[in-house]
Amino acid sequence: MSDQLRERIFQELESITLIDPHTHINPHAAASTTLADIMGYHYYTELAHSAGMPREHIEEPGISPKEKVGRLVEGLAHLDNTIQLSWLLDICREFFGFEGETIDAGNWEALYDSSQQKMAEEDWEDQVLRHSRLEKVFLTNDFDDPLEGFDTDRYIPCLRTDDLVFHLGKASTRQRLEKATGIDVGDAASVVLACGKLFDHFVRNGARACAISIPPDFSPAPVTTGTVDPLIQRLAGGDELAAEEAATVSRFVFWTLAEFCSEYKLPFDLMIGVNRAVYPSGVYQGQDLFDKRVSLIQYRELFNAFPKVTFPISVLGQTSNHELVSYAWIFPNVVTNGHWWYSNIPTYIEQDTRSRLEAVPRNKQIGYYSDMYKLEFALPKFRMYRRVLAGVLAGDFVQGRGWSESRAIQFGQQLLRGNVERIFGVN
Amino acid sequence: MSDQLRERIFQELESITLIDPHTHINPHAAASTTLADIMGYHYYTELAHSAGMPREHIEEPGISPKEKVGRLVEGLAHLDNTIQLSWLLDICREFFGFEGETIDAGNWEALYDSSQQKMAEEDWEDQVLRHSRLEKVFLTNDFDDPLEGFDTDRYIPCLRTDDLVFHLGKASTRQRLEKATGIDVGDAASVVLACGKLFDHFVRNGARACAISIPPDFSPAPVTTGTVDPLIQRLAGGDELAAEEAATVSRFVFWTLAEFCSEYKLPFDLMIGVNRAVYPSGVYQGQDLFDKRVSLIQYRELFNAFPKVTFPISVLGQTSNHELVSYAWIFPNVVTNGHWWYSNIPTYIEQDTRSRLEAVPRNKQIGYYSDMYKLEFALPKFRMYRRVLAGVLAGDFVQGRGWSESRAIQFGQQLLRGNVERIFGVN
Amino acid sequence: MSDQLRERIFQELESITLIDPHTHINPHAAASTTLADIMGYHYYTELAHSAGMPREHIEEPGISPKEKVGRLVEGLAHLDNTIQLSWLLDICREFFGFEGETIDAGNWEALYDSSQQKMAEEDWEDQVLRHSRLEKVFLTNDFDDPLEGFDTDRYIPCLRTDDLVFHLGKASTRQRLEKATGIDVGDAASVVLACGKLFDHFVRNGARACAISIPPDFSPAPVTTGTVDPLIQRLAGGDELAAEEAATVSRFVFWTLAEFCSEYKLPFDLMIGVNRAVYPSGVYQGQDLFDKRVSLIQYRELFNAFPKVTFPISVLGQTSNHELVSYAWIFPNVVTNGHWWYSNIPTYIEQDTRSRLEAVPRNKQIGYYSDMYKLEFALPKFRMYRRVLAGVLAGDFVQGRGWSESRAIQFGQQLLRGNVERIFGVN
Repeated sequence: MSDQLRERIFQELESITLIDPHTHINPHAAASTTLADIMGYHYYTELAHSAGMPREHIEEPGISPKEKVGRLVEGLAHLDNTIQLSWLLDICREFFGFEGETIDAGNWEALYDSSQQKMAEEDWEDQVLRHSRLEKVFLTNDFDDPLEGFDTDRYIPCLRTDDLVFHLGKASTRQRLEKATGIDVGDAASVVLACGKLFDHFVRNGARACAISIPPDFSPAPVTTGTVDPLIQRLAGGDELAAEEAATVSRFVFWTLAEFCSEYKLPFDLMIGVNRAVYPSGVYQGQDLFDKRVSLIQYRELFNAFPKVTFPISVLGQTSNHELVSYAWIFPNVVTNGHWWYSNIPTYIEQDTRSRLEAVPRNKQIGYYSDMYKLEFALPKFRMYRRVLAGVLAGDFVQGRGWSESRAIQFGQQLLRGNVERIFGVN
Repeated sequence: MSDQLRERIFQELESITLIDPHTHINPHAAASTTLADIMGYHYYTELAHSAGMPREHIEEPGISPKEKVGRLVEGLAHLDNTIQLSWLLDICREFFGFEGETIDAGNWEALYDSSQQKMAEEDWEDQVLRHSRLEKVFLTNDFDDPLEGFDTDRYIPCLRTDDLVFHLGKASTRQRLEKATGIDVGDAASVVLACGKLFDHFVRNGARACAISIPPDFSPAPVTTGTVDPLIQRLAGGDELAAEEAATVSRFVFWTLAEFCSEYKLPFDLMIGVNRAVYPSGVYQGQDLFDKRVSLIQYRELFNAFPKVTFPISVLGQTSNHELVSYAWIFPNVVTNGHWWYSNIPTYIEQDTRSRLEAVPRNKQIGYYSDMYKLEFALPKFRMYRRVLAGVLAGDFVQGRGWSESRAIQFGQQLLRGNVERIFGVN
Repeated sequence: MSDQLRERIFQELESITLIDPHTHINPHAAASTTLADIMGYHYYTELAHSAGMPREHIEEPGISPKEKVGRLVEGLAHLDNTIQLSWLLDICREFFGFEGETIDAGNWEALYDSSQQKMAEEDWEDQVLRHSRLEKVFLTNDFDDPLEGFDTDRYIPCLRTDDLVFHLGKASTRQRLEKATGIDVGDAASVVLACGKLFDHFVRNGARACAISIPPDFSPAPVTTGTVDPLIQRLAGGDELAAEEAATVSRFVFWTLAEFCSEYKLPFDLMIGVNRAVYPSGVYQGQDLFDKRVSLIQYRELFNAFPKVTFPISVLGQTSNHELVSYAWIFPNVVTNGHWWYSNIPTYIEQDTRSRLEAVPRNKQIGYYSDMYKLEFALPKFRMYRRVLAGVLAGDFVQGRGWSESRAIQFGQQLLRGNVERIFGVN
């Protein structure tokens, strides 16, 4: 395809003002204050660790942010091929005027200092948002988050429910739930009541989605009160449940959440396929992997039972994309959602984007979310996606199917912004 | 690769006269009479439904063909990115002189009327075949089809066996079987006898293949008469079988069919991996999906047991293609067959074609079949395939390996026509 | 991407002197003596068989090498599209001055005779190594190989352990083990002792890796002596074990090998996913296939238990590549290793290479190994890889990310040579 065509479309896509529909931003500290906030992103620590740096060296307690950055820089040469490192360079170039080809022993300190100065500017957060053309940012809030002290119009709450579904067996989860809702969980009915209170609290505070990440072996299904009541009572009494019993409780809570999503008209973001702590000696947040032997057929009953709930679906393994395309092509309530984690690299984004653009109705695709922990990452991550998207629009649509450039760009706008507005009800 | 080279090869491939080795054409009404026949193809109804149109709106009983088209047109804007909609536009342009960029509220009625006039011409069916360079068309016939009243040289019968294998437990299937063969199914021997009669009937009427679509969890295996006899007797006595018992009957019937394929020298088309009615509230024919956790290792015993039977294999999930390439590379009786349903989009056709052309002997590949219900679809669907094929031949063979253009085109001819002739014994 | 850029990078990659980190070379007869040695490679016999030639014709006992080649040539026309046939042509052109477009009835005898003369030259082996820029070659040695009579600096021993892990139940394996180590295997302790002797023997003779190929359903796990002792005692007493018992023995031996890899600091090459003798009527070495339903999660416990052992991992199915990329990105001891067997075709090499180069630290990737049985194959196989690699470096790195050509070439050198030296400790 013509490079100029692709570049023109890319520039148009770059000019779109974004709503980022899934991040891990802390709204009380959304932007970074030092390079350690940026390089502390698990991608850099886990890749540096994978490339040979001991975890103890990376995560030594008490080291200063600058010391931490200095240590990580020692390992960067082994990672300079990764797309993740290209995000870091993009940030340093765009926000801090960095001009080197690599960050290394010879230049990192100057970069550290100049970036720290920049980030100390009073309006740094606003600068980042503005420069990144980022208007609104979805959060990932613990179920007991008070949702206070920040602008919920800019930072949109999202009820994250992993703990409720998969860790209700822990006393600490039940205590947090009691503290948040005033309800002491002792049976199925009290779980339903408590969840209802959470939805009420979140929706009153502007939440636009419920979300959860799910291991590959989980299959949602309804559970009767009669089945789950004795299990929850045993939990409340301090018992530990066997694995299959705990899975029954998980299914019950999950199904309850879906019912509330239906009642409160909240989309339910499903992030399917992660096994937690596969590598327990890994760095913080660098321990999870997956088992590709998962199928969306496991969600058949759920998708049928909740026709009014929109399920934006992210899949962790690239080999799950074809199922996602096909399920979104058939089920009205299944929507493709971004490119998640291990699938979030250009090679796989390209394949997944091509197939989605070709076979899923255009109003059922959420192009991208950043998944970021610090605001500075929206720019390079969305840019990576927009570059791939521009190539697909240029090659498959303008050249392959004779679309006009403006028509292709409109399609891109819908994927990047329009669908986010409509599906989550924000604008 | 050079665009001109690709275009030249594409034009050569377009000039090939085709035999379409798998369709759902009704030979008594092969061509369309209104645009509703064309837009009633499940791709359009299911995508429109998926994009938000209620099933009741699409499938309301008693609405006229024109009303149906009008309603579907309301939903087309959400689908205009899909490759399936590009087939529709291709049909309207090629056959009805349509010149718009999209079919919409402003132009559909004129299109409807002019196309209806065109389709009313007496020789419409012949026009479509001629314009599409389509010489012969394989059918999908119910096992109790009388195969009368049509030209079996043009419309080649194919014995479809899903009902026999997976629904012999239904009284209605056994009644149809008795009516077709005069044999009352009461034990294993009578099943064998009845199947033999079907093969005899089909082969005498020019059938060139036996075919079946298979769910992901099915594994063919031989079953002894002693095992299956009591089960069939119970069926005949009106009993319902448990799931595992029904699977035993399925395996018995399937194996019996393979034995007759061997005896009658019929290829046995296996279409592997579909789960039926995953979404029972979907539109007609828009309810099936798949579970990618299927492997061709499930067919190991079958492929070994029937070395004389050719098995043209279609896989539903794209992640099954590498297994298919590898099994066709090793087993003399395994042949790659087209690009089926959810895998029938250019992104996946391209990947699958590249790998097959690179690793499967050239005489063991059936390039494409249309799977169409109405004749008008052969043209755009084969064209989509030929475009992809032209790109692969130009890029990987002419440019990548220094082949001459004519050599590449000959290879394309073999994939599109030569292998169909030889494998199914038609020409 | 620009063709000139790709070609320049390719030429630079071609100039790199190689260490081939995995082959099946017989160091006592490393090079071929006739074209039958070359065309007897299982790729040609199995593809000719798959395309229609009877096994008995290909493998008839007592036929001369020339007769064998003549017979295979009859079947080559059906394979001329395969990448494997392009290797053969490359060999004939590079080493024997062949100038035809295809090898056929009209030219094969002249080729046979001229090539035989060439291969009869006294220094043929050295010529091949020199012309292929091949410096060192890893072997695949049976555990009871005396490792004598060849230059272990050029031909580097590698302890292959399939027999020990999966066939200790055979009396013949235990007899070979006793003969090689002097230890009569009667319980768990004696197995450990014997394995220790093997490692000692191999490491003293310059071995640089332990290796094994593994079926898809195997999951490594530690086994206590108390569990395995009675099983091994029963084996020693002549009993046959049930499948699950045999799997327990396999797990025990496997874990023992991993412990010795840790002690002797040997990388443990895992080649994951092959089912043996799926097609027992196939030609020699053309009977194995795979079940894609395998996951690296099966190796979770192993990777955690042996942080000091480097595991270069090859996967047989292309759908396993994303897991491999992700596990290598997280686990410090997991390394990506080449493109194995059914995945060793350009379409899949390209996808796998792109994703690895983008997401795995650059010091954790072994670009390629030839897997060859005869020295002549290193040249065309590595060339195929280098062509793909040049395309990825040119497109994704120089054009896509603005890398300089020399930086891209250095990366290629690391993948092709540098990492092999460091990971296996050779240079």
